[in-house]
Amino acid sequence: MTGISVNKIKWIRSLHQKKYRDELGLFLVEGEKLVQEALQFTPQTIEFIAHTSDFEVKSSAIESVVISPSELARISSLRSPNKVLAVVKKSNDKANIASSGLTLALDGIQDPGNFGTILRIADWFGINDLVCSKDTVEIYNPKVVQSSMGAIFRVNVHYENLGDWLKNESRPIYGALLEGKNTYQESLPKDAILLMGNEGNGISKDLIPCITNPLTIPAFGQAESLNVAVATGILVSEFKRK
Amino acid sequence: MTGISVNKIKWIRSLHQKKYRDELGLFLVEGEKLVQEALQFTPQTIEFIAHTSDFEVKSSAIESVVISPSELARISSLRSPNKVLAVVKKSNDKANIASSGLTLALDGIQDPGNFGTILRIADWFGINDLVCSKDTVEIYNPKVVQSSMGAIFRVNVHYENLGDWLKNESRPIYGALLEGKNTYQESLPKDAILLMGNEGNGISKDLIPCITNPLTIPAFGQAESLNVAVATGILVSEFKRK
Repeated sequence: MTGISVNKIKWIRSLHQKKYRDELGLFLVEGEKLVQEALQFTPQTIEFIAHTSDFEVKSSAIESVVISPSELARISSLRSPNKVLAVVKKSNDKANIASSGLTLALDGIQDPGNFGTILRIADWFGINDLVCSKDTVEIYNPKVVQSSMGAIFRVNVHYENLGDWLKNESRPIYGALLEGKNTYQESLPKDAILLMGNEGNGISKDLIPCITNPLTIPAFGQAESLNVAVATGILVSEFKRK
Repeated sequence: MTGISVNKIKWIRSLHQKKYRDELGLFLVEGEKLVQEALQFTPQTIEFIAHTSDFEVKSSAIESVVISPSELARISSLRSPNKVLAVVKKSNDKANIASSGLTLALDGIQDPGNFGTILRIADWFGINDLVCSKDTVEIYNPKVVQSSMGAIFRVNVHYENLGDWLKNESRPIYGALLEGKNTYQESLPKDAILLMGNEGNGISKDLIPCITNPLTIPAFGQAESLNVAVATGILVSEFKRK
């Protein structure tokens, strides 16, 4: 089928907004690579695909239409749309949070790019669960989806009251603080929670008492801080390098 | 003095574009924190400051005007302007590239946010020199300046023909590759060059032969790659942790 109806255009464009993503339980996945990953990892969640003639949808079970590049530009949330856009169902059947291994906890990360990059770190280092405070940026924000580079299909993201969740945890809780212990001198365990704070304000005051092991990446220069995704990468790497 | 002339507005707005930054040898620094850092680290390079009434310029040696928030919004390159904008001279008197310690080399980094974040990493870990290929994003791009969080005033950035520069280097050249040696098992020296590649394509083919020590961050999951700033952070941390 070619061409796309005005109603479909409206429906897709509404998903640029969180309000309608919440209401409809759907979100957008864009670009050749990401849609291929959705087709590979969660094909059953794909509701609809609109693509230009140089992209091929092999499954006939999925409703799809061929559109022109200008039609794609009209429905896309990206500045440079790339061949294909999929409407995908949010996942409801989340596995429980694992009680062993390394789990990442995020307190109020606001920047979609940072959040997507942290998802990618979790995916690279084989961390299955990411537990976020309720004020962390929405996982289905198009910029999070894009910058996660497919990690969104493989890492389980949970939004919880972090204080309540941390209180019931038996694993040690490592928190990234500016005045913690030198990470390089710590013997880091296999089973742990690593808590990272907001870009500007760090970890909230009410979560500080939950931290059993404050951690710091030693500074050698004059910068006041590292980007939170970079700090997460360095600390996760420290846990995994042993 | 209050208010800003139409000519000044045009002059400042022209600096949103690389063409005029190149032509005039000037760039923009915005926001309370960054302008304070410019005042602290490179006051002699500040040509002009426009600020709202809640920001104070203590030095009378610098030309400044008080403007309204709406005037600031008109000249700003940011979505959410913050109190002050400074016009700053590009620095010409660059120190030579150090021939010892750890030096970072960047091959074609394109994303301004990634580049700014890498500058911040260099600043945190006390790396003085960043040597970039000529097609690396411009350091004076407003998004680079903002995401560097002041590192731009403390780290020396050099644009060079990387191939020529690397050929004349006697330090070992570590390159981040997907099929290098396991970073965690390497004994990394104090004096070295760490070469990082472009976001999508990695290190260019013609620079691969310059690499004496290919390095890889081991993967534990299914992600295809890490964000380049995160990978830079992890590798620099590995060099510095010894």
